[in-house]
Amino acid sequence: MPNNNIPLLVKELAAGKVRAAARLISLIENEDMGREIIPLIHNKEHHAYTVGITGPPGVGKSTLTEKLVLQLLKNSVKVGIIAIDPTSPFSGGALLGDRIRLHQLSTNPNVFIRSMASRGSLGGISAATLDGSKILEAFGCDFIIIETVGVGQSEVEIVKHVDSTILTLSPGMGDDIQALKAGIMEIADIFVVNKADKDGLEKTVSEIEMLLRASNHNNFIPPVVKTIARDNIGIEELVEKINKHREYLSQSGDLEANRKKRIKFELWHRINSIISAFIQDSLTIETMDNLIDDIYAKRVDSYSVADKIIDKLINR
Amino acid sequence: MPNNNIPLLVKELAAGKVRAAARLISLIENEDMGREIIPLIHNKEHHAYTVGITGPPGVGKSTLTEKLVLQLLKNSVKVGIIAIDPTSPFSGGALLGDRIRLHQLSTNPNVFIRSMASRGSLGGISAATLDGSKILEAFGCDFIIIETVGVGQSEVEIVKHVDSTILTLSPGMGDDIQALKAGIMEIADIFVVNKADKDGLEKTVSEIEMLLRASNHNNFIPPVVKTIARDNIGIEELVEKINKHREYLSQSGDLEANRKKRIKFELWHRINSIISAFIQDSLTIETMDNLIDDIYAKRVDSYSVADKIIDKLINR
Repeated sequence: MPNNNIPLLVKELAAGKVRAAARLISLIENEDMGREIIPLIHNKEHHAYTVGITGPPGVGKSTLTEKLVLQLLKNSVKVGIIAIDPTSPFSGGALLGDRIRLHQLSTNPNVFIRSMASRGSLGGISAATLDGSKILEAFGCDFIIIETVGVGQSEVEIVKHVDSTILTLSPGMGDDIQALKAGIMEIADIFVVNKADKDGLEKTVSEIEMLLRASNHNNFIPPVVKTIARDNIGIEELVEKINKHREYLSQSGDLEANRKKRIKFELWHRINSIISAFIQDSLTIETMDNLIDDIYAKRVDSYSVADKIIDKLINR
Repeated sequence: MPNNNIPLLVKELAAGKVRAAARLISLIENEDMGREIIPLIHNKEHHAYTVGITGPPGVGKSTLTEKLVLQLLKNSVKVGIIAIDPTSPFSGGALLGDRIRLHQLSTNPNVFIRSMASRGSLGGISAATLDGSKILEAFGCDFIIIETVGVGQSEVEIVKHVDSTILTLSPGMGDDIQALKAGIMEIADIFVVNKADKDGLEKTVSEIEMLLRASNHNNFIPPVVKTIARDNIGIEELVEKINKHREYLSQSGDLEANRKKRIKFELWHRINSIISAFIQDSLTIETMDNLIDDIYAKRVDSYSVADKIIDKLINR
C-alpha cells in the first residue's frame, strides 16, 4: 500500500529520501493534494535555481538535458528534472524513447527525474509542476530543470515559471524560425542551436541574431550557444552562460523581482482554484444544467447567470 | 467622437449596421465591456454556424479563408471572419500582408471581417473572441469563421469554441506532422492539405490518414481535402465537407451537446473573472505586496495566503 502519511513523507523528504519525494509528487499530480502538502514544507531554507528547456520537437532537448545534468553534477550539486509530457493519445513512440534514456540518469543518487503530464488545460499544468518543483527544492535540489516538449502556448507558460529559459533550436529550420517569431523568441534567456554539425548552422545562428536585434531585450542580450549534445560539445559553455545569466539576474535585482511576479501569478491561480471548487460544491449538477439550458436557449446570457451565481454565494 | 451609447449601438447592430458591429467589438476588445453589451443582445433568434481554421504558419490559411468565404457567399449567406493575430512584437511583416488581402473581402456588404489580438494570457483571447462572435451572430452572420495563426495551445483553445475545426497543413511537412501529433491532430474535424500542387502531397495525405487510423475519432472520421486555395481548387469540396460535418453534428445531437459544453466553460470563465475583479478591488496594492513578500521569504505558502484572502471575503 502506498504511503499516504503526509507529515511523515514531508519529514522523509527533508531527510533526502527519494521515495518520499516521488510519492509526494504523485499525491500532488494524481490526487490534487498540493494544498495539503505544500503548506507543510514552506519553511525550508534551501533555494533551488530553476531552468526551463523548451524548443520544437526533434531538436534534441532530451539529449541536451541529459548532458547538461551530467555537467552540472561535476560541480557536485543535486539536480531535479521535471519532464513535461503531452497527454495526447498520439504522443507515444518517439517521445517515450527519449524519456527512457533520460530516466537512466536517475540511477545517480544526486539526480531526481520525474515526468509529469501536460493537462492541456490552463493552470492544470503549471500548478502541479510548480508544486512539484517545490518538492524538489525541499528535497535539496540545487538546480531544477523543467523540460517541455513542443513550443505550444502551455509550454511557453511553463518556462515563465523558471529563472532561466533555454530555447533549443537546430540548423536548417529556416522557415520554422520565421514561425517561431510569433510569440516565443522573446521568452529565451539563452539560445541553444543543437546538432551544430548539421548543414545550415551559420544561417540559423545569424537568423536568430537578426531576430534578437529586432527584439526588445533590454539589458541582457541572450547568448547563442552552439552544441552537439550527443557528443557533449558546447555543454560546458552552456553551463557558463546559465551561470552568467543567473549572475545578471542576481545583480540587477531581477531574480527577486521575477520570482515575486511568479508568486503573484501563483497566488491568483490558487485563489481562483479554491473559489471554483467552492462554487462547484455549492451548485447541484441539476441547477448547473438548467442554467446552461437557459443560456443555450438564449433566454439569458452567461454574464447575467455568472452574476446571479456569485451573488448567491458572496456578499459583494 | 466614437459612439459609446450601447443600447443605441445594439439596436443598430440588429438592423445590420456594419459600423455598430465594429464599434461594439472594439468596446468589448479594448474596453472590456462585454459584460455591459452581451446581456443586451441575448434574445436574438438568429443562429450562426462557427468554423475554426488553424494550422502552422505558411500553409496558406488566409488564402484558404478568403476563397472559402467567397464560396460560401455564392449561397448568398452573410459571413463573419475573426482573424486572431498574435500580439508578439515580432509578428509584423508577413502576417500583415495576408491580413490586408483578407481585408479586401470586407468591401463586400455580406462579409464582416475583424482582426482581434491574441493576448497570450489564457481566457483573454477566448473571452473577447467569443463575445465578438456573439456580436457577429446578432449582426446576422450565418457563418462565422475564426482563423488563428500558428498551432500553439491558445490557438487550439480557440478552435474548441467552434462547431467545426479545419486543420490546414501543406505537403512536405513530414517532420512537422510528427510534431503535430502531440496534441493537435485530434482537434481537427476536417483536414485540408493546401498547396496540393507542391511536392510530397501523397506522403502528407497518407501520413495524416495513418495518424487518423491510430486516433480515437469515434463516429465521424475527419475527411482529408486537397486544395490549391490560390487557384480556387478544392474549395467547393471543402464547403461540402463542412456541410456534411454540420449535418453529422445535428443528427447525432453533438451540435447541441458541444455548444452546451462550451457554454459551461464560458460560464466558469465569467465566474472566475468576476471574482478575480472582486478580490482585486478588495485588496490594496500594499496588502498584496506584503503577502507576496511573505511568500517570497517562505514565511508562509501561497495556499495558506489564498485561503486567508478568501476567508476575509466569503463566508464559506
